[in-house]
Amino acid sequence: MWNAADERPSVCALLMPQKFTRLPHLAGTEQNLRYAEQIRDEWLEFGLDSVEMVPYDVLLSYPNKSQPNYISIVDQLGNEVFNSSLAEPVPEGYEDTSNIVPPYSAFSAKGQPEGDLVYVNYGRTEDFFQLEREMGINVTEKIVIVRYGKIFRGNKVKNAMLAGAKGIIMFSDPADYWAAGVQSPYPAGWNLPGGGAQRGNVLNLNGAGDPLTPGYPAKDYTYRFSLEDGVGLPKIPVHPIGFHDAIHLLKNMGGQIPPNNWKGALNVSYRIGPGFTDDFKSQKVRMNINTDNKVTRIYNVIGRIRGALEPDRYVILGGHRDAWVFGGIDPMSGAAVVHETVRSAGRLLSKGWRPRRTIVFASWDAEEFGLLGSTEWAEDNAKLLQERAVAYINADSAIEGMYTLRVDCTPSLHTLVYDLTKQITSPEEGEEGVSLYESWHKRDNWTNDRDAPRISKLGSGSDFEAYFIRLGIAAGRARYTKNKKTERYSSYPVYHSVYETFEIVEKFYDPTFKRLQAVAQVRGGLIFLLADSQLLPLDADQYADSLRKYAHSITQLAQTHPEEMKVYEVSFDSLFSAVENFTVAARDFHERLQTLNRVRVMNDQLMYLERAFIDPLGLPGRPFYRHVIFAPSSHNKYAGMSFPGIYDALFDIEHSADPQKAWEEVKRQISIAAFTVNAAAMTLTPPA
Amino acid sequence: MWNAADERPSVCALLMPQKFTRLPHLAGTEQNLRYAEQIRDEWLEFGLDSVEMVPYDVLLSYPNKSQPNYISIVDQLGNEVFNSSLAEPVPEGYEDTSNIVPPYSAFSAKGQPEGDLVYVNYGRTEDFFQLEREMGINVTEKIVIVRYGKIFRGNKVKNAMLAGAKGIIMFSDPADYWAAGVQSPYPAGWNLPGGGAQRGNVLNLNGAGDPLTPGYPAKDYTYRFSLEDGVGLPKIPVHPIGFHDAIHLLKNMGGQIPPNNWKGALNVSYRIGPGFTDDFKSQKVRMNINTDNKVTRIYNVIGRIRGALEPDRYVILGGHRDAWVFGGIDPMSGAAVVHETVRSAGRLLSKGWRPRRTIVFASWDAEEFGLLGSTEWAEDNAKLLQERAVAYINADSAIEGMYTLRVDCTPSLHTLVYDLTKQITSPEEGEEGVSLYESWHKRDNWTNDRDAPRISKLGSGSDFEAYFIRLGIAAGRARYTKNKKTERYSSYPVYHSVYETFEIVEKFYDPTFKRLQAVAQVRGGLIFLLADSQLLPLDADQYADSLRKYAHSITQLAQTHPEEMKVYEVSFDSLFSAVENFTVAARDFHERLQTLNRVRVMNDQLMYLERAFIDPLGLPGRPFYRHVIFAPSSHNKYAGMSFPGIYDALFDIEHSADPQKAWEEVKRQISIAAFTVNAAAMTLTPPA
Repeated sequence: MWNAADERPSVCALLMPQKFTRLPHLAGTEQNLRYAEQIRDEWLEFGLDSVEMVPYDVLLSYPNKSQPNYISIVDQLGNEVFNSSLAEPVPEGYEDTSNIVPPYSAFSAKGQPEGDLVYVNYGRTEDFFQLEREMGINVTEKIVIVRYGKIFRGNKVKNAMLAGAKGIIMFSDPADYWAAGVQSPYPAGWNLPGGGAQRGNVLNLNGAGDPLTPGYPAKDYTYRFSLEDGVGLPKIPVHPIGFHDAIHLLKNMGGQIPPNNWKGALNVSYRIGPGFTDDFKSQKVRMNINTDNKVTRIYNVIGRIRGALEPDRYVILGGHRDAWVFGGIDPMSGAAVVHETVRSAGRLLSKGWRPRRTIVFASWDAEEFGLLGSTEWAEDNAKLLQERAVAYINADSAIEGMYTLRVDCTPSLHTLVYDLTKQITSPEEGEEGVSLYESWHKRDNWTNDRDAPRISKLGSGSDFEAYFIRLGIAAGRARYTKNKKTERYSSYPVYHSVYETFEIVEKFYDPTFKRLQAVAQVRGGLIFLLADSQLLPLDADQYADSLRKYAHSITQLAQTHPEEMKVYEVSFDSLFSAVENFTVAARDFHERLQTLNRVRVMNDQLMYLERAFIDPLGLPGRPFYRHVIFAPSSHNKYAGMSFPGIYDALFDIEHSADPQKAWEEVKRQISIAAFTVNAAAMTLTPPA
Repeated sequence: MWNAADERPSVCALLMPQKFTRLPHLAGTEQNLRYAEQIRDEWLEFGLDSVEMVPYDVLLSYPNKSQPNYISIVDQLGNEVFNSSLAEPVPEGYEDTSNIVPPYSAFSAKGQPEGDLVYVNYGRTEDFFQLEREMGINVTEKIVIVRYGKIFRGNKVKNAMLAGAKGIIMFSDPADYWAAGVQSPYPAGWNLPGGGAQRGNVLNLNGAGDPLTPGYPAKDYTYRFSLEDGVGLPKIPVHPIGFHDAIHLLKNMGGQIPPNNWKGALNVSYRIGPGFTDDFKSQKVRMNINTDNKVTRIYNVIGRIRGALEPDRYVILGGHRDAWVFGGIDPMSGAAVVHETVRSAGRLLSKGWRPRRTIVFASWDAEEFGLLGSTEWAEDNAKLLQERAVAYINADSAIEGMYTLRVDCTPSLHTLVYDLTKQITSPEEGEEGVSLYESWHKRDNWTNDRDAPRISKLGSGSDFEAYFIRLGIAAGRARYTKNKKTERYSSYPVYHSVYETFEIVEKFYDPTFKRLQAVAQVRGGLIFLLADSQLLPLDADQYADSLRKYAHSITQLAQTHPEEMKVYEVSFDSLFSAVENFTVAARDFHERLQTLNRVRVMNDQLMYLERAFIDPLGLPGRPFYRHVIFAPSSHNKYAGMSFPGIYDALFDIEHSADPQKAWEEVKRQISIAAFTVNAAAMTLTPPA
């Protein structure tokens, strides 16, 4: 059978990403189809039972080649006195590459808004509150400029729209995209050059997948909404720039001096505006955005190994293939891991092994455009997945730092992740003979709460979303990350820029490829153990522990309003009682496992445990976010929230004109959470 | 093992309803709890593995005892010159019975609206269209009077509200509640006495269950909406009367002479109004309605037999216990069948038999108030039922006529129903040695389409609703019925009146109790075969056949607009292609069954087939009606529609101000239906 030590892809094999990172392979382009065909062919060679290309026709968004996007400063005569750059300086070795898409905000509205700039820090909900309430500045008819970082860019755009702005510019500030210990930008170091900028979509899909076919797969016969009725499309122009360009926009800004935590690391004052200072008052900023939305064919590659004993139980390893440009880190460092896992599985198959359950491997398309490939496939196969999927392991970028492991997963996978990482060797120099678990524990021993390395909640921002938050399939992801305590920049400096090359990985992030190998062992190990263990390695006790912690922390949040809680008779008792019911049911369940005689029955209970947290009615206003325990934050898609319904209701209290109504909603959400946890407890009791 | 011939409850046993029909047992009353406890105790004695009482606190509605409901005619001085009766004349033998609730419309708004009457036939959608468009009569500020029959009374109330009426009176016309061949009302015959009236709820729940806790079980900790935010509560007063009282309201009406099909069988002109004729013009009608809504505890009784081999697969037999008064027909003729089935099962258990799968028996409460007991339990157990329920068989009234069998069920049960009824003997005199199937076939050989007795689609109006239309569990119901061709009255004459006694069954409907016995054999037989067959007796080929028929008939409906179909490019090709995919998948599936080696895997595919038709997004505006193939008609809850999404979109075309938008919705619904049928086909293909 499988064990982690066997899972040792050669360094040579891990160089594989090199061949999939030579050329830009944006979703919907010829080259990304070529790579899909190559992956299909190699997976078949590796020995999978079947591999198919699964196309969907989804809404994508590209810059108009004949009318480039840019930002201008115009003087009172209408002359463009400054224009932002039309492209990033291309890194050495790629000078002759065609089809590098310039930095843009996918799905931006078209338009040429012109007006005064207002600087709103990171464009977070709290930044706009501070701007409007404390600084008394209204952005109606203004163009907002915000720095990248802290939250998902789509949330910034939504906040700007809600505040009434007519356009939004996002820039990468060195405070957020420049590692302190690194002197140079790429290629001498791994920091973001001043001419580099972050591409990315600016949708607010809330899990809908293709904006024109929410809820259904984007097939030939599927009804498509018009663009006006599409889900999550911003109504204002949006554009990203690098810090060289940002200096020109910021340096002459007038208005208030901002609080210190609004200041980045550029040599400018970060004044709020609106508009420029004295001498430049008559200058305005104009956005020139001509990006086109276009229904375009995308291709997932889906490979399968038929389960020997339980062919109707699926364990899924999926990660995306499409990249903004080369995808040296995002996603090909992760796609390489999937590729190597397929190769390993093929080798095992050729030796006569066959997993107990079916394994599905997926190379998703158009993740960068809103998780489209993975969501459409989830919609296409929802009925099968609901009944049959055991777990989904995500394989986006395998590396975003050089320090230690990072795992985000459902609580029922915690035990498996810990057990598995104890069998894997640390990839760090000087840690020979140390396990990955020990290394990780030493580097990220984050809490007194338990003596174990950090595992975080899943938010969104990668392809697990539809599987976990919509369908309720146990899910997890693992990658190598930076040191959270000392490295304060957002994601990694060259994120979504042209500088994400194979060479940046080879030269800086993982020269020996041992970190990628460790990540491959974690992801592959999870898949093999989930597919091959007779008893599913899912832990309901861990879910009980986590539920208790989440219940305490959401209660603490509510208790910042002790008086209102009395006035409106808000009680969390029912939730704690439900958590207690769940805890007892989980403990009894795992006790019964000791004397189990009906593996299939108990495995089904474990498999459906995650599904038990799904509310078919969805969260308020977010019909595709249906997981009552976990959802992406309403204010930052990347962040995972526990008890999101209660959390959002508590958040609204602060801003509601009708406190009674707002507290009623808190009570309703507590009741839904208590019901759901009780119902989940019932799924763990003996079936009859 | 079980066979139909064994399932012979003695006539004596079937007299059992007698003891549960002596006293009124309205939902929420002491007596209905007493009957629940008695049923629990007897089921335990019969030998079930467990029996429990499951309470919920739901919104019920009762007349105010100190301020009775009635209708008056008032003269111009405000004197009440006529008052409708406050109660029905009590049948012989029940004179000393207390707690007979007078006829009322449960959940009526309170109020004393006064105004002119307008007669609107049956109060159907088409009746109001005819009234407004052809007759030019507006009912705003009027009180509408309609006759009972044809459609669910709640739909009449909704139509009256939408038309702007300020009250609605419903009466039982002899044209609709008097069997032609029967000379006398009860007790000499089985027709409705002139003083009798039909009780009933007038909600428009669309499957929500308890109006204050839609989507969640009405438990102690469950958040309750305020009455204003409750689901489906009418905003106008509503009251039912018998035909003796109706004559007084109708005899002096003025206005237009109605079309012939608006005329009932009373000796009045059925003029439309508004208001009374010449001499009586100054008289108005006043409704006096004081009915109270009240959160009240109800009790389901849930009994279980643990499955020997598949304890995590459930087959459910459920029917309600609560009655408007005695419930001689509705529901106790059906509850007796459940009771006898439990007794039979107990006898078998005592002989060492144990079914393969778990059987659940349910005595539901508060069905008459909107299917509340069954829906709350479905909400409480949704996660378990979704994963584990094989089928739900409903057991409301076992008899509504004296002619032949009536079955409404999902297409996958057709074959089982036909096979089973061939093993059962006809209960009719002179048909000794004839099977129930043959008798039924001869009496209701309704179509050239196939040579088999009629089986109809499930609509709503009984407790299967949440199981079938919300959760997608294969479901069916069977009862004895009248001759549809010759008996034109609605339901049965004494329906929901005080005259539904045990004696009316014993004297007229089924003196030998052989019809009840036949129904018991059908319902019990379905349960035993579903619980005990190694391979689930569900037929995907029959579903394919039905889908094809439904697709043809919905297409024909659309083709009544051939030109618009061209203009708006509406095509049903995708739906027919999906039906073809489904047909092939079903055929292949049943071929594989011939050489089956994975019974559990294939049984799961059969079990989940019905679930595959559920769209978690629900039908437009009806979030709890989620079955894409079947739903209650939007215009009559009792009627089952196929492809309800497409049907409703086509219906709206006729009344939409924006035909393009309306046809876009037709196209969207076709696409959803095609997707769902394709997805269902996928569930039947080999899992890996």
